[in-house]
Amino acid sequence: MAGTDRTAETMASGGPAIVLVEPQMAENIGMVARAMANFGLADLRLVTPRDGWPNEKARATASRADHVIDGARVFDTVREAVADLTWLLATTARPRDSVKPVRGPQGASAGLRARIAAGQPAGILFGRERFGLSNEEVGLADEIVTFPVNPAFASLNIAQAVLLMSYEWMQSAGGEGEAEAPRFAAPEMEPAEKGDLHRLLDHTEALLDRLGYFRPPERKVALSEKLRTTLTKANFSRMEVHALHGVLRHVEARLDGKGE
Amino acid sequence: MAGTDRTAETMASGGPAIVLVEPQMAENIGMVARAMANFGLADLRLVTPRDGWPNEKARATASRADHVIDGARVFDTVREAVADLTWLLATTARPRDSVKPVRGPQGASAGLRARIAAGQPAGILFGRERFGLSNEEVGLADEIVTFPVNPAFASLNIAQAVLLMSYEWMQSAGGEGEAEAPRFAAPEMEPAEKGDLHRLLDHTEALLDRLGYFRPPERKVALSEKLRTTLTKANFSRMEVHALHGVLRHVEARLDGKGE
Repeated sequence: MAGTDRTAETMASGGPAIVLVEPQMAENIGMVARAMANFGLADLRLVTPRDGWPNEKARATASRADHVIDGARVFDTVREAVADLTWLLATTARPRDSVKPVRGPQGASAGLRARIAAGQPAGILFGRERFGLSNEEVGLADEIVTFPVNPAFASLNIAQAVLLMSYEWMQSAGGEGEAEAPRFAAPEMEPAEKGDLHRLLDHTEALLDRLGYFRPPERKVALSEKLRTTLTKANFSRMEVHALHGVLRHVEARLDGKGE
Repeated sequence: MAGTDRTAETMASGGPAIVLVEPQMAENIGMVARAMANFGLADLRLVTPRDGWPNEKARATASRADHVIDGARVFDTVREAVADLTWLLATTARPRDSVKPVRGPQGASAGLRARIAAGQPAGILFGRERFGLSNEEVGLADEIVTFPVNPAFASLNIAQAVLLMSYEWMQSAGGEGEAEAPRFAAPEMEPAEKGDLHRLLDHTEALLDRLGYFRPPERKVALSEKLRTTLTKANFSRMEVHALHGVLRHVEARLDGKGE
């Protein structure tokens, strides 16, 4: 058994992180772990699971995917859960009005495979059982994934959605995925970690707030979301994020009356 | 609601039949129905479900896929369940020692799509929760489907297996499937219904029994299985089945001392 588990862990290394946002049923977390293990994934992250963690109900439905359950990490916010990733997908039931690219599971997996092969840590957000991801959470992602379900009957649960993405992840090892690999000619073009990006977004928003951009106040949420979506779209490199902080600091200094 | 259901049914028409062999948990049947509905399938066939049919537990886990639950048909044997089909896949946890072609879900779906597009009814066998399909049941199929799971952790349940096949079925509408389409130049090459084929297999076996082929008697099961597998492999046309019956009858007549 130990030997079996070790093999499963070895095979699992390097796949995308599966991030469950406020999962309600512990049983679902277990079925997610089982689906991940079936297709060689092991990095499970939970954002404030309702029933607490660790949870024996989850272990029961995981059907011996103990290495996934034991390795799961809990976070207080989505931002913290994805801070070390450089590529993030958000799963939604249907394409939203968004400027973000929308992909099917196959195209999304090819993109994941290419980035992970290039050493860039990646992850996939899955929303709550009842109402999925908020617009703000979707806004954190680089691309959206939707499933080609029958529009007259679309009721994939969270474990099924994870199963399909895990399956396509393993399928993408087949080869074609490589074609979509982004080429980063120079090291300075390596994508920024999400934590860096989020600090940039906060910085930008704070400055715009100071400049009175968010008016009237009731429009702040919508304007802020739009801004974050726009700034997330580019998959900024670490260097770009650094440079943009510099721009913001420059403006701030001017407002403070310092500098030139 | 009625309108929604009608659309779901319309979209579902023409997909492969999903045949569950001796399913034990009614909850699993419901989850299978839900997975089918998500991807536009509706023809559910049950071979002696353990908990009886209809079953309210199945309806509960079907999550409103009522049109699939209401349309499900129960059969006493696998043979009866597939008698009207001309192309049959068997799902197995791992490739078996078999002369049958083994495909992944994607290749299998492309093959299904091609045959169904040509007007040939097709179906997929799914085995029992605990021990899958018997060798004899696998022997009834034209091809085997296995899932590309992590060999160190392979524990797809029946609803997950149906979900993946249903998903790939919908994916196969995308196009490439057509390339694999078998071409039947002449109507006489149209594949036989499985019921016709099974009568041919019975006929053959009865004749061989009479000829003392199955000796020693304890080898009968293995020899018979091998024979059935071999004869199933060809996907005989209706005309071929007819002709082969003729051959058998001819031999029988000779044994009876009739004819020439």
